[in-house]
Amino acid sequence: MSVTVSRKAHFNAAHRLYRPDWDDAANEEVFGKCANPYYHGHNYDLIVHVTGTIDPTTGYVVDMKVLKDLIKSEIEDAFDHKNLNEQVPEFKNLIPTAENIVVVIWDKLRPHIDSDKKLAVTLYETPRNYVHYEG
Amino acid sequence: MSVTVSRKAHFNAAHRLYRPDWDDAANEEVFGKCANPYYHGHNYDLIVHVTGTIDPTTGYVVDMKVLKDLIKSEIEDAFDHKNLNEQVPEFKNLIPTAENIVVVIWDKLRPHIDSDKKLAVTLYETPRNYVHYEG
Amino acid sequence: MSVTVSRKAHFNAAHRLYRPDWDDAANEEVFGKCANPYYHGHNYDLIVHVTGTIDPTTGYVVDMKVLKDLIKSEIEDAFDHKNLNEQVPEFKNLIPTAENIVVVIWDKLRPHIDSDKKLAVTLYETPRNYVHYEG
Amino acid sequence: MSVTVSRKAHFNAAHRLYRPDWDDAANEEVFGKCANPYYHGHNYDLIVHVTGTIDPTTGYVVDMKVLKDLIKSEIEDAFDHKNLNEQVPEFKNLIPTAENIVVVIWDKLRPHIDSDKKLAVTLYETPRNYVHYEG
Amino acid sequence: MSVTVSRKAHFNAAHRLYRPDWDDAANEEVFGKCANPYYHGHNYDLIVHVTGTIDPTTGYVVDMKVLKDLIKSEIEDAFDHKNLNEQVPEFKNLIPTAENIVVVIWDKLRPHIDSDKKLAVTLYETPRNYVHYEG
Amino acid sequence: MSVTVSRKAHFNAAHRLYRPDWDDAANEEVFGKCANPYYHGHNYDLIVHVTGTIDPTTGYVVDMKVLKDLIKSEIEDAFDHKNLNEQVPEFKNLIPTAENIVVVIWDKLRPHIDSDKKLAVTLYETPRNYVHYEG
Repeated sequence: MSVTVSRKAHFNAAHRLYRPDWDDAANEEVFGKCANPYYHGHNYDLIVHVTGTIDPTTGYVVDMKVLKDLIKSEIEDAFDHKNLNEQVPEFKNLIPTAENIVVVIWDKLRPHIDSDKKLAVTLYETPRNYVHYEG
Repeated sequence: MSVTVSRKAHFNAAHRLYRPDWDDAANEEVFGKCANPYYHGHNYDLIVHVTGTIDPTTGYVVDMKVLKDLIKSEIEDAFDHKNLNEQVPEFKNLIPTAENIVVVIWDKLRPHIDSDKKLAVTLYETPRNYVHYEG
Repeated sequence: MSVTVSRKAHFNAAHRLYRPDWDDAANEEVFGKCANPYYHGHNYDLIVHVTGTIDPTTGYVVDMKVLKDLIKSEIEDAFDHKNLNEQVPEFKNLIPTAENIVVVIWDKLRPHIDSDKKLAVTLYETPRNYVHYEG
Repeated sequence: MSVTVSRKAHFNAAHRLYRPDWDDAANEEVFGKCANPYYHGHNYDLIVHVTGTIDPTTGYVVDMKVLKDLIKSEIEDAFDHKNLNEQVPEFKNLIPTAENIVVVIWDKLRPHIDSDKKLAVTLYETPRNYVHYEG
Repeated sequence: MSVTVSRKAHFNAAHRLYRPDWDDAANEEVFGKCANPYYHGHNYDLIVHVTGTIDPTTGYVVDMKVLKDLIKSEIEDAFDHKNLNEQVPEFKNLIPTAENIVVVIWDKLRPHIDSDKKLAVTLYETPRNYVHYEG
Repeated sequence: MSVTVSRKAHFNAAHRLYRPDWDDAANEEVFGKCANPYYHGHNYDLIVHVTGTIDPTTGYVVDMKVLKDLIKSEIEDAFDHKNLNEQVPEFKNLIPTAENIVVVIWDKLRPHIDSDKKLAVTLYETPRNYVHYEG
């Protein structure tokens, strides 16, 4: 009896999309307005999904309070009100597209989730654009 | 050509999370504020998903009106404005966590859905916490 | 230059609507399913609106962090995961309808908001039912 | 490392559900109010999901701007502010149920998505009714 | 102590915007895609607001169940799954713009609301366009 | 017969809250995480409200297409994917708090709205924080 438990969280951050090995024209052509050297930003909405069997003692797949605290300590504290390019080490050499951010978040959370449980992460960059990664 | 049809519904209910075989301190430690002996409550949002092939005569996988009425008679009439612990028989000996509720809902609906169709249920306990069960 | 600043919060609670001086039939007739003696519950969504002039030094009408903490200490800590009838003193002799709750919330917040600022409160009992009070 | 990228769009359209080979009574019995000969309509919300590996050069699975423009040219321009029965050729001999519409949308988009990427489409007919098709 | 009580409802309808005393080019110029002679449609979301004093006996400004039933009988039954131009008498000689619809709804509800209470109506034509009328 | 017409739009931007005449400690004390010198960002949701009488010829208070284009040319083109502090002249000497942004937006739109119509602007900095200005 496998159930997926999902918890929403959010953080606000600045970023820009560009490759330092490309000139401005090349960056602008590929990344458009997202290449703005002065940065822009988003309210990121994050959903963390954990799939596993229900513990018959507690009725929980995972304690939501524990999951909420894990998301706060691993993701919100690291990303919220930050400049992803300048202040989050994972993006020092990685373009902070939504696709790359969702993989980074999954990689940061995976070691903290029991190995017999499945982890998936959904990340909304805007209410109209979102990505999903299952590992 | 398999399509999933989803229908949203909702019910409001009271519940508490606790084990009668544990003392108050143990319940409080595991279930926190959710163990409050005077109950608390939620607006539960429910999404029922039915997957099957499209009937070429009607263009339907399932008639949404029939699905809506089924959710009402089987789930809303049984759960809405109720105390899950005290008034819903399925939770007499089962802790009404979101995980257990979503399995109970799936079990109640499954006999009413054609056996060649797949059933899944998503249950929002709050806009930030939800669970999903596919049987 | 008067601007209104609004902050959302939420709490989950159980309640029932009934008058102890009426018999069950009278309560059922007026309050319907809401009179259920075993209680039911809601995810209440709360929006607190403060209207005033912008402080030219900070650009704030009110510091959102201060407003967020005030809502937490005065309302969320008092109401969240509680039974409004049994555990919130303001409803000992007051029916916890959405209308009465929103007035109680306004009365609890008003002394903490500068007297030259206007306060209004919106309370969602469900996504379909809400109330608004401006004092 | 397979990531799903999702983009929301929307269009408004009129439709009716009926079979010309049935009489009015038969159409009314099966399709109810949806058989109204004068049509009714919806704000359709559309989510297009593309799954593939992240391009290490751009950090993209697919360029969202390209996906947005594709949805506009193939779907929004063809369906928005149209009568699906009368003005969209795909429904000349196909009942425009949500199930059939989502398959038509998938079929229209599939040739424009790289063959090594997976395509799925979700279509909300109302905020309470939606369908999903993965091909 | 004046409180506003708000109740949401919805209906789906087809309409077109045009003046029969104008030719097609003039209609197209003013109303654009909305003039399509084959109609298009919307999921209209409706919020009805009633402002008055709280009845100390019930704690209600207005009984939400009564308000819900009133919206159903006066508005939803008349407008849902209808063609506003062809099947709703109020629009026989009135262009069914959102502005005109919201006034028609207000006029239909006003006689059923106590004269000492204030009525306002909000109508969403799409999630991005809405209108509000207070009489 | 005065009706309010509301149109939603959105833009993504980076900003920081700080006073150049204060040192870092003072900025941090007042503006907290929002003072981050590397900026952070938001998906701003904007609602523009225009109140006036219905034109009996068109049934419009204002043509939504015209209003949509006005918001795009005056606000979205100026603010979207920009750093408000560095790239939007209005904030050269004005802290880009939500309160100041909403006043700037109102001031930019007001000359383009007929003088006999009332203008109001609502700005969501996050789904939990928003401001409203009526001039």
